[in-house]
Amino acid sequence: MLARDLAEEYPIVSVDTDAMEAARLLGRHRLSGLVVTDSDGMPKAILPASQVLRFVIPTYVQDDPSLARVIGEAAADRIVRELRGRTVGDLLPEKPSVLPVLKGEDTTLELAALMAQLHCPLVAVVDEGRLLGVVTAAHLLEHALRE
Amino acid sequence: MLARDLAEEYPIVSVDTDAMEAARLLGRHRLSGLVVTDSDGMPKAILPASQVLRFVIPTYVQDDPSLARVIGEAAADRIVRELRGRTVGDLLPEKPSVLPVLKGEDTTLELAALMAQLHCPLVAVVDEGRLLGVVTAAHLLEHALRE
Repeated sequence: MLARDLAEEYPIVSVDTDAMEAARLLGRHRLSGLVVTDSDGMPKAILPASQVLRFVIPTYVQDDPSLARVIGEAAADRIVRELRGRTVGDLLPEKPSVLPVLKGEDTTLELAALMAQLHCPLVAVVDEGRLLGVVTAAHLLEHALRE
Repeated sequence: MLARDLAEEYPIVSVDTDAMEAARLLGRHRLSGLVVTDSDGMPKAILPASQVLRFVIPTYVQDDPSLARVIGEAAADRIVRELRGRTVGDLLPEKPSVLPVLKGEDTTLELAALMAQLHCPLVAVVDEGRLLGVVTAAHLLEHALRE
């Protein structure tokens, strides 16, 4: 069993994808993050769902979330307003979460070790310059403990 | 729309839950983390799927994941062997990821602000000493952008 055998399709966006569309993907698939590719289609970063919220919530409210109550605005209204016209590239922080990448021939123990080292719930698997798919920590556990 | 209106059921384990069962839950529901309650049923911490892998992978391999290839053991075998007989409490690190908690009457903007502040994909919602459920960042985005 190698990394390529566990790699699965996973919702992917590029830095040029519309921010609303990316947020909808996160919501629809109930994901804690999306894989972001560069314009050449190679995996570049993770866009965590919490990062989308960091983009839409003003810094002074993030510093003191109790101020959110005073603002009296619904989260939904702010999310829609702030994401309109933006791209995924706009949402990524200056130093985005690194997406770990392995090759198809790497072993499942290498996958597990990399996720453990980086506290990261997913690894992209690439073969010959092509993104084969993604392995999540949950999928690795499911495979290990399948009944 | 308040926190209690968005709170949903979410797989929950206690510190005494069998580690294998917790890992199976993560796998079956493809979750990046579980909510862990104390023995009194109140939310205590998050058990990230990557933390389960940190528990089963030796530290020297986490420090240099390329050593994983030399070991020549399948991740599945190690996961099963290391989790057997353990509890969720055993898997949690000394300083576990804090699970943010809000009250049912808190606003959705407070939810969003807390997730943004803590880079955290989920918040537990508690009312009168009872866990109502969990709101994930993905669910908040889904609610905001429902078509």
